[in-house]
Amino acid sequence: MNTPEKLIIFDTTLRDGEQSPGATMGQADKLRIAKQLERMGVDVIEAGFAASSPGDFAAIQAIAQVVKNSTVCSLARANLRDIEKAGLAIQAAPRKRIHTFIATSPLHMEKKLNLQPGQVIEAAVSAIREAKKYTDDIEFSCEDASRSEPEFLYRIIEAAIREGANTINIPDTVGYAVPSVFGEFIKNLREHVYNSDQAIWSVHCHNDLGLAVANSLSGVHFGGARQIECSINGLGERAGNCALEEVVMAVKTRKDFFNLGCYIDTRQLVPASKLVSSITGFPIQPNKAIVGANAFSHASGIHQDGVLKARDTYEIMTAEEVGWNTNKLVLGKLSGRSAFRQRVRELGIPTKSEEEINEAFARFKELADKKTDIFDEDIQSLFDEQYTEQQNIKFVSLKQASETGKRPYAEIVYLENGVERHGQAEGNGPVDATFNAIESCAKSGAELLLYSVNALTLGTQAQGEVTVRLSFGGRMVNGNGADPDILAASAKAYLDALNKLNVVREKKNPQFGNDAAAV
Amino acid sequence: MNTPEKLIIFDTTLRDGEQSPGATMGQADKLRIAKQLERMGVDVIEAGFAASSPGDFAAIQAIAQVVKNSTVCSLARANLRDIEKAGLAIQAAPRKRIHTFIATSPLHMEKKLNLQPGQVIEAAVSAIREAKKYTDDIEFSCEDASRSEPEFLYRIIEAAIREGANTINIPDTVGYAVPSVFGEFIKNLREHVYNSDQAIWSVHCHNDLGLAVANSLSGVHFGGARQIECSINGLGERAGNCALEEVVMAVKTRKDFFNLGCYIDTRQLVPASKLVSSITGFPIQPNKAIVGANAFSHASGIHQDGVLKARDTYEIMTAEEVGWNTNKLVLGKLSGRSAFRQRVRELGIPTKSEEEINEAFARFKELADKKTDIFDEDIQSLFDEQYTEQQNIKFVSLKQASETGKRPYAEIVYLENGVERHGQAEGNGPVDATFNAIESCAKSGAELLLYSVNALTLGTQAQGEVTVRLSFGGRMVNGNGADPDILAASAKAYLDALNKLNVVREKKNPQFGNDAAAV
Repeated sequence: MNTPEKLIIFDTTLRDGEQSPGATMGQADKLRIAKQLERMGVDVIEAGFAASSPGDFAAIQAIAQVVKNSTVCSLARANLRDIEKAGLAIQAAPRKRIHTFIATSPLHMEKKLNLQPGQVIEAAVSAIREAKKYTDDIEFSCEDASRSEPEFLYRIIEAAIREGANTINIPDTVGYAVPSVFGEFIKNLREHVYNSDQAIWSVHCHNDLGLAVANSLSGVHFGGARQIECSINGLGERAGNCALEEVVMAVKTRKDFFNLGCYIDTRQLVPASKLVSSITGFPIQPNKAIVGANAFSHASGIHQDGVLKARDTYEIMTAEEVGWNTNKLVLGKLSGRSAFRQRVRELGIPTKSEEEINEAFARFKELADKKTDIFDEDIQSLFDEQYTEQQNIKFVSLKQASETGKRPYAEIVYLENGVERHGQAEGNGPVDATFNAIESCAKSGAELLLYSVNALTLGTQAQGEVTVRLSFGGRMVNGNGADPDILAASAKAYLDALNKLNVVREKKNPQFGNDAAAV
Repeated sequence: MNTPEKLIIFDTTLRDGEQSPGATMGQADKLRIAKQLERMGVDVIEAGFAASSPGDFAAIQAIAQVVKNSTVCSLARANLRDIEKAGLAIQAAPRKRIHTFIATSPLHMEKKLNLQPGQVIEAAVSAIREAKKYTDDIEFSCEDASRSEPEFLYRIIEAAIREGANTINIPDTVGYAVPSVFGEFIKNLREHVYNSDQAIWSVHCHNDLGLAVANSLSGVHFGGARQIECSINGLGERAGNCALEEVVMAVKTRKDFFNLGCYIDTRQLVPASKLVSSITGFPIQPNKAIVGANAFSHASGIHQDGVLKARDTYEIMTAEEVGWNTNKLVLGKLSGRSAFRQRVRELGIPTKSEEEINEAFARFKELADKKTDIFDEDIQSLFDEQYTEQQNIKFVSLKQASETGKRPYAEIVYLENGVERHGQAEGNGPVDATFNAIESCAKSGAELLLYSVNALTLGTQAQGEVTVRLSFGGRMVNGNGADPDILAASAKAYLDALNKLNVVREKKNPQFGNDAAAV
């Protein structure tokens, strides 16, 4: 077997992932995910689509300033303004890439772009020429490539490589491909494009028919691609993208077959999955491969004799190697600051300052007063709350009651820029009453799109983590709140969402403004 | 293109799916799922594993009595007792199958069975001979086939077909296969087994590396298999099985490539997915293919200009064809019995008697008093509650209150076999207080394993649906409860779970008793 060639892992959780309805992330959320991706050893982080909004631009810029080991990339349509925005946003990164794209299928060229094929090539070439002013690392994508004419793809790809694109990405934009055909498709392109050896080939597959991982692997194994675009939990438009955790574990577990070098620290997969799930409020189904709670028998907390007797009989990988660790009882009421700091370090929670640890430690003590056993997830959540940007609105207290046959009632107290606000209301249930109480003073006019509850830890002592999604004026935000009292957690989540709505973010959800980012 | 050959859809939600930790289903739950599978046009329903427990036996028997159009199948190890149990359980079904299996990989034969290869063939042949006493439709599976020696597989499969097995199933038990190799593997087996044309070949793939759908399709397209074993939502051991909804839509959407006849009524896919999710309490992630809330852009409730302008540009199938219908405001407080009956019929809710509809209508009126808008999901939930078996324990009322800085408090009243029980307790949060209040009289000793909340309908008028999973003496049960008050829903769910714990079901979770069912 030859020395394995390197497989480049390109993560698009922050770009294609964020385009999922309801997965909009704030800048602080994006930074946390970017740092986790860097920790995991992801080669390229697609941090956003700079021209889509000032908010996206700022988030990419912030990521470019802190990420050192991964390449930071911005998406850009094939026009000079988009390229300029992308180039400026990634400027600070030690390794930076511009990813430009244009649709190449007859359907898209005609219906969406309203351009002749020759004009499409010209736009691509000018965009790449412009991009070279900002970086030498340029990726070019043919949107809807799997439904494009091969002859036209040869021409546009040859021109792109000649102009300086060093990664050529072939997306299956609508998730229509089947593995054997997609692999052949990539192979055929590489054989026909005369300068194909001057670029690394890449695949970007959508999961509409459940085939994204298989299509990506076929593009690599049969087609010769050496970059896979993927996302944590397979987050992305519609049914999402190729799931990073699945494709990485397939390449690793079946190294005998794929023989590729993939240098992801797989023990970071489960933490990354949990992070993205908690930020987006998208649950992970228990039978999700690799990161679902049942994916490994032992992760379900059930002692299985058979598995313990002869692990190989049913396990092809171990829970430990993908980052499942037993939900250990780690700290209690009497644990001191140093034990706390030690555990925070072991959990790999990124902390910026001693002050931040001290603040979290104070919250830890508060929590330990209410809850006897503190689990790893609880510690993680102490930091989750702290990441909330510009907390202008702060929870103070909630009083609520309900009784069968009577209308539930709630009273809320919160601080808005230091001023105490009091609200009270009835509702259909205690959650409804709590939200009505908040709205009785906040009067935000926001629409509640989603209310979801996750128990952070098991058992009757569970902390509830609530996600509330609000929409106002075309913007959608997720707020999170954690508390042993599910109604207090709900109030915190609602207030957090109001906070985020107030933060000036001109960005609308990207899929409204334009539909061009559907690579 | 030739006339398409028929692809047989074999559903194992009730067998392999039920083996997932936490997915244990009661007999009434299984009946509902079986009826939905029949309505969908599934060819074979694997209803359980008769010898694994009296509960499984009874559930298969009940399903065999009502399902007319689908074949009803029971799993059985290759021993005479198992075959007898299976044969008796399926007796009443007009179309019935026994599915017997034995491990064929060196690892499993040695470590698990402790048998020589010749003895394994002998066991298989005797089992098939015995099975013929009960039915002519016999399926034989080689457990862990993808890690077995081909030469041994030829021998055992030839013997099985000679003895009368007319379906030969090749499972990828540990989810280790990659599509191209798996397809070749099946093709090679079919070419070498001299009597291979006397049986239909089948594949059963696990999703540990996210490749179950692709492996199944490759087994069909390249290998020539004509049966796919799959399950709703991909439910099954660990990361689960091939997802029925994905594989069916892949075959349908890419009929140009697969050219297979598949006669599933795809509009039943989303209802089936929701039914299985609500029974198991396993959420469906929004970016799950086909049945996730974001799988189709419009299902997210967001108006997308791009998609509406030229639907083909981004959609390869429509939301309607897989059973997504707009969450219509259908009924209100003033709706009468006939409008209600009409809508129940339109929703395809199976009802046994006029009395059942009347009871549901009474609940509907109660709900309409509390909640202005009644959605389809609400109507469905009225029937969900009624399906609960032997309701010895019934919710009467809940009173609870919490206030920041004080201990939450709850008072519960419920009926146990007609006797009123009163309980009260404090807790860490109102949910904890509610459960403690119930336990203060119930004293079940059960352990709370999972608490999950789904909003059934959107907005502030949402009804909460709560799932509570309890464990006692090695048994696990899920209880469900729905109410506009999340705490009342929690109490109902807890009481429902207690009910199910009381129902005599000797069955332990199948994966404890034996690990033999890991096909």
